[in-house]
Amino acid sequence: MDIKGFRFSTVEAAIKKPGRKDLALIFSEVPAIASAVFTTSTVKAAPVLVSSEHIKSGRAQALIVNSGNANACTGEPGMVVARETTRLVAVALGINDEAVQVCSTGVIGVQMPMERIQGAITPLVDGLVSGTLNDIAQAIMTTDTFPKMETRNGEAGGIGYTVAGIAKGAGMIMPNMATMLSFILTDASVESGFLDKSFRKAVNQSFNAITVDGDMSTNDTCLIMANGASGNPTITEGSPEGIAFTATLNSVLLSLAKQIVKDGEGATKFVEIRVSGAKDDSDAKRAAMAIANSSLVKTAFFGQDANWGRIFAAIGYSGAEVDQSLLSLCFDDVCMAKKGVFAGDDAEARGTEILKQKEFTVTVDLGIGSGTATVYTSDLTHEYISINADYRS
Amino acid sequence: MDIKGFRFSTVEAAIKKPGRKDLALIFSEVPAIASAVFTTSTVKAAPVLVSSEHIKSGRAQALIVNSGNANACTGEPGMVVARETTRLVAVALGINDEAVQVCSTGVIGVQMPMERIQGAITPLVDGLVSGTLNDIAQAIMTTDTFPKMETRNGEAGGIGYTVAGIAKGAGMIMPNMATMLSFILTDASVESGFLDKSFRKAVNQSFNAITVDGDMSTNDTCLIMANGASGNPTITEGSPEGIAFTATLNSVLLSLAKQIVKDGEGATKFVEIRVSGAKDDSDAKRAAMAIANSSLVKTAFFGQDANWGRIFAAIGYSGAEVDQSLLSLCFDDVCMAKKGVFAGDDAEARGTEILKQKEFTVTVDLGIGSGTATVYTSDLTHEYISINADYRS
Repeated sequence: MDIKGFRFSTVEAAIKKPGRKDLALIFSEVPAIASAVFTTSTVKAAPVLVSSEHIKSGRAQALIVNSGNANACTGEPGMVVARETTRLVAVALGINDEAVQVCSTGVIGVQMPMERIQGAITPLVDGLVSGTLNDIAQAIMTTDTFPKMETRNGEAGGIGYTVAGIAKGAGMIMPNMATMLSFILTDASVESGFLDKSFRKAVNQSFNAITVDGDMSTNDTCLIMANGASGNPTITEGSPEGIAFTATLNSVLLSLAKQIVKDGEGATKFVEIRVSGAKDDSDAKRAAMAIANSSLVKTAFFGQDANWGRIFAAIGYSGAEVDQSLLSLCFDDVCMAKKGVFAGDDAEARGTEILKQKEFTVTVDLGIGSGTATVYTSDLTHEYISINADYRS
Repeated sequence: MDIKGFRFSTVEAAIKKPGRKDLALIFSEVPAIASAVFTTSTVKAAPVLVSSEHIKSGRAQALIVNSGNANACTGEPGMVVARETTRLVAVALGINDEAVQVCSTGVIGVQMPMERIQGAITPLVDGLVSGTLNDIAQAIMTTDTFPKMETRNGEAGGIGYTVAGIAKGAGMIMPNMATMLSFILTDASVESGFLDKSFRKAVNQSFNAITVDGDMSTNDTCLIMANGASGNPTITEGSPEGIAFTATLNSVLLSLAKQIVKDGEGATKFVEIRVSGAKDDSDAKRAAMAIANSSLVKTAFFGQDANWGRIFAAIGYSGAEVDQSLLSLCFDDVCMAKKGVFAGDDAEARGTEILKQKEFTVTVDLGIGSGTATVYTSDLTHEYISINADYRS
């Protein structure tokens, strides 16, 4: 289904290898309410620096994004390219520079070929058409093996609206955030402060709850634009429509986050890690992320080895408050360890069967308090090594 | 060279696979001054709990160690086995339980076969002979591909002494500490408080400065015993002999730590990471460890890809104070990036040549302050995945 009031365009700019769409433009016919979350790394790419400056207005009308070059660790020349890119887009669209967001993904440390971007602006703007995000989702892929998209519909005051999102991920996936770009568009009219708040919360429960390899990138950006083109009465906090909008937004982001994990570089397993009984929620997340990031746990998943001891070891160094005599652990419905000790040989065989599945859940009870957290991760495989040992060549 | 006053014994107890020495005993003819550093994990193996209780006396006379079973996550039954093991050794040697240290390494979560240890105590004690640590180094191996040993000689008051050490490592190698056992023996007479202080400092600069996979284990133990059998005048802090002893001790531990990294599971590269110009030493270590633990950096090392951008990305999320426009990075003597940007195409080709070596140094200057740190790491390879996906089977 079309998202009203947005237009899309993609071109080959030869930033990546030839024959591949690598530059994309999203344009909202009217200025949209916008919010964005960027990498918390202290080494930020030039487009992140420029976009985080521009988003302060709380508005955005266009987004230009490229794959093939991250424009990160490129110093002042990189900043010039990022600024000039937003300026050229603004001029071509007849809007202000500050209404243009710019994002990049790809190799770090290589200067961006400005002349190729410059040459692509006119065809990009000329090619803008209504439709879906499908082509954009394709154009932002790097080592992704499939485009990541999600669409949900909602209703406010009897008028339907759409929330659609795309994402790219693959490697360097780690909360706060990941080599991850995600763009969420909605034609709903949403009150600005409420949009910002719901969006940040949704990011926390989705993109900040996934990990592939524990690496965070220089370019992570998650952006939402709400242009109100569906004509619904403005959605506000606390209203039934607000609650419904939040739920819709959460489900779009969670779906995209899960797609990123499923397409984690070389991943063959999708694993949900649920921790309960922690001192508090942050302790629960600490334990869950230690499990999700442990190379030993992730290789055991790949090996389909019900090695719950490695999970206990990861919890042990997580920094979460732990009493090892209270720890319990299950793979799906098979309890492997109760109160710190092995549940018995029968569990071993049954647990191994669970780990042969492509998807399963690890449930850990710390047995101390009421803190909970859920995170999503993949296994660590030969293919991950191959992809990352050869990525640039 | 023999270490005076110590005797050694190894047997097959069938804890591991048959046909392999898996139980070892070290005995000092007189009670030795002793100190130990244990895992900081909150999930501690039973032998760690028992040994850390026993070491409080500052003395040890015997050490029993097995491979093949970690006796971790084994609850109260595991504690009974660890305690009973020290009791049996104490009875057989005619010493106190508290003078016996016990260590285990191997699979987590499986109950230790007490009857096999019990049956092995008499042959173990009967087999005690003077000599070297070589057989013990063999007996404590798990996925290690070679035994790790180092010996240095010193002199105090005209009397020679020996400092000898062994270690096992391979996977789960991460500071504070690692699936790592290391035993240091010396026949020097050393003042107790000084031994403890020098030892902890030496551990920090060696075993706590290495990482293979970022995982810390439930069983890590590093123990030193000084029995004074060489008859030297007791070495004290601040004396020239004290300074020389510290240097000797440091060099034994650093050599063992480097051997562990070189034998990191599947490792093909040995990489020294030197960070300078940090706000302070802890910030430098934070940056160095983030680099050393990054899966993306380690796969680039494996791929011999001079991908300095991934190193900058790791520094960015390390938590260290960073100004990206001040960052510089070299592979050995080839400067890849200066003040945040690529040093040029010539550097790319030359940097790639450096990464083809089996050993190289990554030097990072944060350009902020005077904090420094050096850590050691390996690459992340297909072989790591194979070893850890199949470890238990």
